Amino acid sequence: MGKTIAINAGSSTLKFKLFEMPQERVIASGAVERIGFDESPVHIRYGLDHKYREREVVPNHQAAVNIILDELIKLHIIETYDEITGVGHRVVAGGEIFKDSVLITDKVLQQIENLAEYAPLHNPANAVGIRAFKKILPNVPAVAVFDTSFHTSMPKTNYLYSLPYAYYEKYGARKFGAHGTSHRYVAGRAAKLLGRPLNEMKLITVHLGAGSSITAIQNGQSLDTSMGFTPLAGITMATRAGDVDASLVAYLMKKLNIQDPDEMLKILNTQSGLLGISGSADMKELEERCDTDPQAQLAIDIFVNRIVKYIGAYVAEMQGVDAIVITAGIGERDAKMRQRLADKLGYFGVELDPHKNLVSGVERDLSTATAATRFVLIPTNEELMIARDVERISQLTK
Amino acid sequence: MGKTIAINAGSSTLKFKLFEMPQERVIASGAVERIGFDESPVHIRYGLDHKYREREVVPNHQAAVNIILDELIKLHIIETYDEITGVGHRVVAGGEIFKDSVLITDKVLQQIENLAEYAPLHNPANAVGIRAFKKILPNVPAVAVFDTSFHTSMPKTNYLYSLPYAYYEKYGARKFGAHGTSHRYVAGRAAKLLGRPLNEMKLITVHLGAGSSITAIQNGQSLDTSMGFTPLAGITMATRAGDVDASLVAYLMKKLNIQDPDEMLKILNTQSGLLGISGSADMKELEERCDTDPQAQLAIDIFVNRIVKYIGAYVAEMQGVDAIVITAGIGERDAKMRQRLADKLGYFGVELDPHKNLVSGVERDLSTATAATRFVLIPTNEELMIARDVERISQLTK
Repeated sequence: MGKTIAINAGSSTLKFKLFEMPQERVIASGAVERIGFDESPVHIRYGLDHKYREREVVPNHQAAVNIILDELIKLHIIETYDEITGVGHRVVAGGEIFKDSVLITDKVLQQIENLAEYAPLHNPANAVGIRAFKKILPNVPAVAVFDTSFHTSMPKTNYLYSLPYAYYEKYGARKFGAHGTSHRYVAGRAAKLLGRPLNEMKLITVHLGAGSSITAIQNGQSLDTSMGFTPLAGITMATRAGDVDASLVAYLMKKLNIQDPDEMLKILNTQSGLLGISGSADMKELEERCDTDPQAQLAIDIFVNRIVKYIGAYVAEMQGVDAIVITAGIGERDAKMRQRLADKLGYFGVELDPHKNLVSGVERDLSTATAATRFVLIPTNEELMIARDVERISQLTK
Repeated sequence: MGKTIAINAGSSTLKFKLFEMPQERVIASGAVERIGFDESPVHIRYGLDHKYREREVVPNHQAAVNIILDELIKLHIIETYDEITGVGHRVVAGGEIFKDSVLITDKVLQQIENLAEYAPLHNPANAVGIRAFKKILPNVPAVAVFDTSFHTSMPKTNYLYSLPYAYYEKYGARKFGAHGTSHRYVAGRAAKLLGRPLNEMKLITVHLGAGSSITAIQNGQSLDTSMGFTPLAGITMATRAGDVDASLVAYLMKKLNIQDPDEMLKILNTQSGLLGISGSADMKELEERCDTDPQAQLAIDIFVNRIVKYIGAYVAEMQGVDAIVITAGIGERDAKMRQRLADKLGYFGVELDPHKNLVSGVERDLSTATAATRFVLIPTNEELMIARDVERISQLTK
């Protein structure tokens, strides 16, 4: 018995969730935001609705880690650091090296840093978070959980682009996907909820958040996924374009008089998607505006269209589907969106029960009793998956 | 009654087909290749297996047109130019302007030239061909038939990318598609063959040649298509990459030390696809090699995978499909490929009759009697469609 902390370090944020394991009880969660800016908001939630908020000067990730651990003690969430028996770190890019979560050694940390060119904004931040915890908790096992690991089961037919083959061999140009921890988690929960063995099912997991991706899961393994070499590809997202004709990169660079392709990519990553079409990246706002604002309706229609097409593509690839699993922010809270999707999936045997659909953030099969294909809501929980992996990998390597 | 010539002018080629209309009888066909090179092969086929081959010095498209018309007279295929009552020109990019074929006026020719930035290699060559015929046959009605027109029926939800909306308004950044004349032709023939009204059907037309594209056709109209802003996007092609994560453009430019994004696009257009994966752009060669060459097999598997996923996406989009129509070089001649595709489409009600499939280049429903979804072979005939459009548009504008 012990406490495991799951860490998600971004370029200027550090989020955590503290679990009592193996009970999987959340003891506390929180975040330090705007690290390196003038003032950094620090949030901690614990116990029955206790909230702690503060603004502090947090110059770097090391300081953020110090503050979090200090506050955990000050607030009597833990009494000593010894209570923390495992640390799990989310890492975005694991390349072809990391096919599972792994105990972090010096070599692993080096490899994570070397993979930075696959995730230039994320992996360096993840590595900084790892170092910061290692400094304070040098003897606690730390485990890296990769967004990409789950997708390393994809066959070459699905992960290879139709490019000169040397680009794959020399430069690793292939589909890696992302959100693997979420897809893995909700697939497992959906199988449990439906009372069927995961390794005999055809699932399509639909993660709809600010970043969105869709995965075809056959026999418990990722067969294909909508994100690509980077998380830019796939369906329309809050600010990311998803799939576009690669010719447009060159065409728009000329039109916009942009010299550096990275600048063009920045536009595709941060000014496109729902935001680009409608002026808002927030699906909640689009839902409110769409009756009177055709551009908001257009953004919603495009979002739905791209999701439905990927689902169709994955039904074709698996030659069938047992359940479609909806998760993440939009998927968990937006009943209208779930209704819209289900309405377009009747051909595949989806039949939503509108009464069952009137929920938010709970695990539920939303289908009618007679639906041939189940349409299931599963709130995602990447932190729990990370905490579980810390337990599993620590045991393995003992 | 008269003779109509259908013209397809490329950057260094000029192909033609001469029809007796309205009987739609082919009187002659041929091509001048390598225009502007030292020596240009000239081919003409006419009558019962008459062939004419010559190498000549053909400095430009005007010279090519002169040679073709001269030879038609010398070979007594026609006796005077007056017999030619219509000229039809294939034009690649019609933008949002040309929703149908059109009689070519000075203004239209100017518009075709203005659309060159959507098809930098093709539209200028098409325009040169138009001018060359206009010079010799100034009083014969000339009609432009656009690859994109058929796809102008696509709804905005399907043709708009998830980019900043101003890029669509200012720069025309949207999906235009291509191969429209082929998709339109085979859809019409398939409906006739199946004895059902085209405007009540859900069809997926699969054009598999050196360039390949897939179109969802609902009620006789293009609803969606796999090619994008340019013919680079969509499924794997002979030398074109099809869909890739746009991030790879920037990533590979850095790795390959390329400054000009157009240079990167050239690689994606000419060194990728089947060629990039396997070293051969020729499906016939890949079929021969695949038993002993894993890379050839991989190229075939990827080709099949991408086609099957697009078909699934379009079934989802139309919420059903009545028939899948296979056409163009690979589709018409490669029975093994048709079998591979059909094998993956059982979930959608496709059931191929292997005996019916043992054909090449004929119109035939290849399905078993009981198949829920028809799987149909229709040889394409873009030239005939062009000749028909010349008749139709000339009548309309008389």
